[in-house]
Amino acid sequence: MNDAAKPPAKPAVSPLAPARTPDLAPVAGVRLAAAACGIRYQGRDDLMLAELAPGSTIAGVLTRSLTAGAPVAWCRRNLPGGRVRGIVVNSGNSNTFTGAKGEAVVEATAREAARLLGCAPSEIFISSTGVIGEPPAGERILAGLPRAQAALAAENWPAAARAITTTDTFPKLATARAAIGGTTVTINGFAKGSGMIAPDMATMLAYVFTDARIAAPVLQSLLSAGADRSFNCITVDGDTSTSDTVLLCATGAAQHEPVTRASDAQLRAFRKALDAVLIDLAQQIVRDGEGAEKFVTIEVTGAASARAARRIGLAIGNSPLVKTALAAGDANWGRIVMAVGKAGEKADRDRLVIAVGGTRICEKGGPVPSYDEAPVARHMAGRDIHIAVDLGIGRGRATVWTCDLTHRYIDINGSYRS
Amino acid sequence: MNDAAKPPAKPAVSPLAPARTPDLAPVAGVRLAAAACGIRYQGRDDLMLAELAPGSTIAGVLTRSLTAGAPVAWCRRNLPGGRVRGIVVNSGNSNTFTGAKGEAVVEATAREAARLLGCAPSEIFISSTGVIGEPPAGERILAGLPRAQAALAAENWPAAARAITTTDTFPKLATARAAIGGTTVTINGFAKGSGMIAPDMATMLAYVFTDARIAAPVLQSLLSAGADRSFNCITVDGDTSTSDTVLLCATGAAQHEPVTRASDAQLRAFRKALDAVLIDLAQQIVRDGEGAEKFVTIEVTGAASARAARRIGLAIGNSPLVKTALAAGDANWGRIVMAVGKAGEKADRDRLVIAVGGTRICEKGGPVPSYDEAPVARHMAGRDIHIAVDLGIGRGRATVWTCDLTHRYIDINGSYRS
Repeated sequence: MNDAAKPPAKPAVSPLAPARTPDLAPVAGVRLAAAACGIRYQGRDDLMLAELAPGSTIAGVLTRSLTAGAPVAWCRRNLPGGRVRGIVVNSGNSNTFTGAKGEAVVEATAREAARLLGCAPSEIFISSTGVIGEPPAGERILAGLPRAQAALAAENWPAAARAITTTDTFPKLATARAAIGGTTVTINGFAKGSGMIAPDMATMLAYVFTDARIAAPVLQSLLSAGADRSFNCITVDGDTSTSDTVLLCATGAAQHEPVTRASDAQLRAFRKALDAVLIDLAQQIVRDGEGAEKFVTIEVTGAASARAARRIGLAIGNSPLVKTALAAGDANWGRIVMAVGKAGEKADRDRLVIAVGGTRICEKGGPVPSYDEAPVARHMAGRDIHIAVDLGIGRGRATVWTCDLTHRYIDINGSYRS
Repeated sequence: MNDAAKPPAKPAVSPLAPARTPDLAPVAGVRLAAAACGIRYQGRDDLMLAELAPGSTIAGVLTRSLTAGAPVAWCRRNLPGGRVRGIVVNSGNSNTFTGAKGEAVVEATAREAARLLGCAPSEIFISSTGVIGEPPAGERILAGLPRAQAALAAENWPAAARAITTTDTFPKLATARAAIGGTTVTINGFAKGSGMIAPDMATMLAYVFTDARIAAPVLQSLLSAGADRSFNCITVDGDTSTSDTVLLCATGAAQHEPVTRASDAQLRAFRKALDAVLIDLAQQIVRDGEGAEKFVTIEVTGAASARAARRIGLAIGNSPLVKTALAAGDANWGRIVMAVGKAGEKADRDRLVIAVGGTRICEKGGPVPSYDEAPVARHMAGRDIHIAVDLGIGRGRATVWTCDLTHRYIDINGSYRS
């Protein structure tokens, strides 16, 4: 997703886009703004500023890429503080592999945002997404920040979600509610991403806000577990971004007792709602996968462990041969067998069961004797494809989401920088 | 490569094919034949039989896929014997995921070939390449074997190489000579492969023959080391076949003293010649990569270890974003940075140096100040692309070969079975 900055190569909205964009109610203590800075795009917003009320806590998961960008390093340094007052995100330039100049731009951005919001620079979190290795657009960001501050409002969720997009064809928003100790709290989030999506090692560019009163270490534990079941289970192209970032902020404006332990039973509904928001955003990223025509759910069961199940699911989801067969609507289950075999996890040919669209295709080391391809072919012609793989070995399970590999992926990524 | 069986989706010869096919002189003790059995293709040979003189030794490397085909299991069981009298290879059906029926076909094939050649079934080695999961074509193979035997001849290298191809657009042959103890020996080999090529875990479908007198354990040590520097360093699409097999046979017809130790200094020239043949065949597979328009050499130096260097090289060579940029002739070095970062091996942003076509693009954590894209753009417009990545950390090095990712890859793999 980091070098996705280019003229809109996907003019139309993805055919897999959700039927409607959810309406996000305000989250007490959060104000948002978008501004147009001309960093790379013209005539659209490319800067997002979020302001959090004093006392807000923060948790984050960041890319494990060893060539991560300067903004990622900044977030990693400040996350242990657990306090947030502002988030600044620009699209069009990822400020990655930009050396000392890139670090200076991050520091200047944090200082200016801190001045505007009246806080310490360490309470400002920063992300950048776009081309890798181009000089960072420091001055344009600094010039845009006061304008963004002047526009801060509690209702600006759609504009904020749009400002952080690059090759995305639709803004990605999600919302949920949950009760903590009898008090209803809101969880709102938005994300971006379309290519360079394989956040197996960490996660994606996404921002989630809640008015719940949750201490930062608890927030971190909730986010780490949730990201593992959502963003870390999607893949578009197997390429891991240098800027993957998910931040979860809690303003504490809700009137329940503060939650200070991750094991607190009162968090049960909140955890469920948070996971739903994270999975919703992760799936929207796959639904906007570069060139995607089909949304694919891969359900792996019976693996030696949950980790093994996810690795097998990602081996299937990353296989170009599986993905081109999906694009062609071909029930090519031999390629699924191949991908299971290359995953490097324990597998037994004679116990493997594969089903597509609910039709069992193979078991006991070969095709099901009565196998009829017709219902599978019908399923494969649709938009939503379901692949179930049971290893028959253990109790490990995972669900992975991916999309097909089409000509448009090549068109989009061949026209880079042009 | 296992499900590559379909009507020729690549009508023309790959633009990266070698200018000429080498002429292979006979190898004393080896006779070859090809036959048309109509296993899947019509009007072309699809069965290859090689006969080896009594006393021939054999070594092999096989796919580590956990869903490997029945022929692979057969080879694995018989390789420890170290003796070979015949090799049977069919194209069009991979006899993979075919259950007990598949095993029965392999056994029947070995028995029939052993009867024809007058040896034990355990001295017959078998490979199958083509569709995964379809009923194996046992009767057609059995019917074709006597015809193949009748056609055995020492000159049939081109026909043998053609008979094992599937989506290949040209037969892949290589030859070299070396002296052992003053006696000149010949090494001839042929290979197939075009898609489902990522033999990182083991290697490819290739057959290499020599008249040298080399004990089977020594042969195995030479082949394992050589495959690691050749077939295990190529990737077309990151998908690992269920049938990858390389066999190296030595007839011992040459008049030098038998070689019984891998450390024997007399093997120096032979090892070099063998490696040259293996690398030549491996590169030809990449040059025939499905849809390939560019041949890409990725040279990784300064890594923490040779293993780390290869992993980084393969991360670059498998990245769809790098490969689509290559197809478009775009010097998109930010994507190379991304791939280095996701490889999971030790890397230091500030020591990383990337050069394309001999032009240094970035160093010290950012672009080279005087960087001029013009010579890089000219290089990228060509057929042979050279990418050099120096990690600046250790002494580990590796060379990986790959091709670009083009629309034709999607066309070829979307038309599967149609």
